[in-house]
Amino acid sequence: MLILIINAGSSSIKYQLLNMNSNALIAKGLIERIGIEGGKVIHKYYKNDNLEKVEINQNFLSHIEGMRVIVNLLTDSKIGVIKDVSEVDAIGHRVVQGESVSHPVLITKEIKEFIRKISPLAPLHNPANLLGIEVAEQLFKNVPQVAVFDTSFHQSMPAKAFRYAIPNEFYINHKIRVYGAHGTSHKYVREQAANYLKNKNVKTISLHLGNGASITAINQNGESIDTSMGFTPLNGLVMGTRSGDIDPSALFYMVRECGVNFEELDDLLNKKSGMLGMTGKSDARDVEQLSYEGDKNAVLCLDLYSYRVKKYIGAYMAALNGAEAIIFTAGIGENDCNLRYLICKDLDFLGIKLDKEKNEKFNSPDRVVEIQSEDSKIKILIIPTNEELAIAQETLKIIAKH
Amino acid sequence: MLILIINAGSSSIKYQLLNMNSNALIAKGLIERIGIEGGKVIHKYYKNDNLEKVEINQNFLSHIEGMRVIVNLLTDSKIGVIKDVSEVDAIGHRVVQGESVSHPVLITKEIKEFIRKISPLAPLHNPANLLGIEVAEQLFKNVPQVAVFDTSFHQSMPAKAFRYAIPNEFYINHKIRVYGAHGTSHKYVREQAANYLKNKNVKTISLHLGNGASITAINQNGESIDTSMGFTPLNGLVMGTRSGDIDPSALFYMVRECGVNFEELDDLLNKKSGMLGMTGKSDARDVEQLSYEGDKNAVLCLDLYSYRVKKYIGAYMAALNGAEAIIFTAGIGENDCNLRYLICKDLDFLGIKLDKEKNEKFNSPDRVVEIQSEDSKIKILIIPTNEELAIAQETLKIIAKH
Repeated sequence: MLILIINAGSSSIKYQLLNMNSNALIAKGLIERIGIEGGKVIHKYYKNDNLEKVEINQNFLSHIEGMRVIVNLLTDSKIGVIKDVSEVDAIGHRVVQGESVSHPVLITKEIKEFIRKISPLAPLHNPANLLGIEVAEQLFKNVPQVAVFDTSFHQSMPAKAFRYAIPNEFYINHKIRVYGAHGTSHKYVREQAANYLKNKNVKTISLHLGNGASITAINQNGESIDTSMGFTPLNGLVMGTRSGDIDPSALFYMVRECGVNFEELDDLLNKKSGMLGMTGKSDARDVEQLSYEGDKNAVLCLDLYSYRVKKYIGAYMAALNGAEAIIFTAGIGENDCNLRYLICKDLDFLGIKLDKEKNEKFNSPDRVVEIQSEDSKIKILIIPTNEELAIAQETLKIIAKH
Repeated sequence: MLILIINAGSSSIKYQLLNMNSNALIAKGLIERIGIEGGKVIHKYYKNDNLEKVEINQNFLSHIEGMRVIVNLLTDSKIGVIKDVSEVDAIGHRVVQGESVSHPVLITKEIKEFIRKISPLAPLHNPANLLGIEVAEQLFKNVPQVAVFDTSFHQSMPAKAFRYAIPNEFYINHKIRVYGAHGTSHKYVREQAANYLKNKNVKTISLHLGNGASITAINQNGESIDTSMGFTPLNGLVMGTRSGDIDPSALFYMVRECGVNFEELDDLLNKKSGMLGMTGKSDARDVEQLSYEGDKNAVLCLDLYSYRVKKYIGAYMAALNGAEAIIFTAGIGENDCNLRYLICKDLDFLGIKLDKEKNEKFNSPDRVVEIQSEDSKIKILIIPTNEELAIAQETLKIIAKH
């Protein structure tokens, strides 16, 4: 059973081919700069248990051209991993915004129309995701395709968590509410935690800390009851280039007093803020390095970053009336022991006590590990996320039904 | 020792005359609709231990006209409480925004210039506060005047709490940061709590829940370390007409997709949102009534309101690594036992357990009361706030120094 996962961006396509009998990765890759000068594809595939790498510099005029190259690489007579596209049993697409859809769905004409219709809710992502679906349909005729929405997992949130205190018409007529994101990842790591702890009712707070970052409160039934990203992925924690939480009145002031155009604001908060805005670097590894060298802005940035996470942990402890485990995942969560330390520091009132040694030892683990101290009331877990595998698993479930 | 407190708004003046030897109220009142048709003054004064009331319908062209009426009422041969303005020893002014000023100050030419200069940070309030100072100077010649800033108490916040993750220039050049508000009230009730509990190092979370609402984390030294209002009083909790926290990207969407002009946004979030936007009523008493009658929007509104407070309590428990007391104050905090109940419900993980009976019994108390259950780890206090008395006390301290 082979499943191809596609994550199409506005100028990129990420893909993975997985053998679902063993959950094993067969090939994966990334095409960048589609429609832009300087296109590039990085393709990796397993050959005799070694991950081999191919890099091609080539310009791509369109997503269809990019997808053709992917097909050629997968079926190449020398380096290919399959003989024909028909060997692929299903394709799973990551789709960012799914509005009120709470489960993955088999892609039909109606679903494509739906994804198009709700594009204003995720203007940078949904049109690209849809394009990925359409080119895959052209090249993988008759292969069933499934859409897995980043927002679905959060549809279980109660109204008190997803509504904003603005006039009702904006919810009723315009669907302005909290949607959240990273749903597939939060769901996946929570399931891993439940399996690992042999407790399917474990209440967890999961911290997906990557270039984008969000934190989710998950109840005893494994349902998301609150999450830090909001109407879009701008809200909540400090991110690589996103501001996270900010008093909206600061935006009014920027326009009135600081010479910022309203049109620039979106870009400013989404692409020039966060770690980048505070330190000049958007990658946490660079900020850590600057901080280590004594750069005051970087020290403050990590301080602010971890303080925000800390407050969300407290808020979600209140929302859940206690949790039994907190989970660190994604790039920063799995690899940055200093930020994990700063986040967990001085939280013993909440029952959270990190073991400093374990925290440093288990950096970037390939399995679930515990890093709390022996007297910590709450488990602190690092769990490697795998959104592609999670999407493949969801895809498998859907095609099994049809 | 007589101190007059003035709180001047853009079309109103609130005032109180206090005898600081006994902290006793002598007279108080409110002038409304200055510069607008339908002006009115409500004046109350003590006569033989009874609070008498005078109501005058009169149009006021300007703040100076309004202030003259106040002086006339205070010194009237029949109903006056003083013979001459020279009996007033000092005047304390509430000033909303004090930027980096962390203490009350004696008003000088320079201070007035400073309040004017920082007016863009509080365009609705500081110009009016300044007008109040200027007319008081004209009518109370040689009486020392003191400015007590609503933001001062929060100047002790660390940078990780007051900075936003936006490009540094907006902080450095434009002073965009968290200022908070209600500082005088938070400081006052925390002092009351410390006295009542005979513990000057009590860590507290104070909930000032009025038409405006904010919550503050106060450390063992009595310093504010974080507060829910932000750059302006728009941020944080749900309020009578203000949205509180909202993903800024929702605003971009309102402008792009919902036909809202950018200029309207400020008004929409500050004056048409919150309880009003969700239920049509801005007063919590009306919302409670609607909810009692089964109005679904009102039920959701109270649910959302209390859930937000709950999350802030959790966040500040994390920020303080535990607190020993939470304080309810201001209109809703002192009077709305249902909201107090909803806020404290299911927080026993944090050590917070309300005594239902005490909560209902001690509604609107005139002194500090405890409403936690016997096995609650954390004290839950209702403390009547008195911002005017607090401003008078601050004023007294300043003039004693000069």
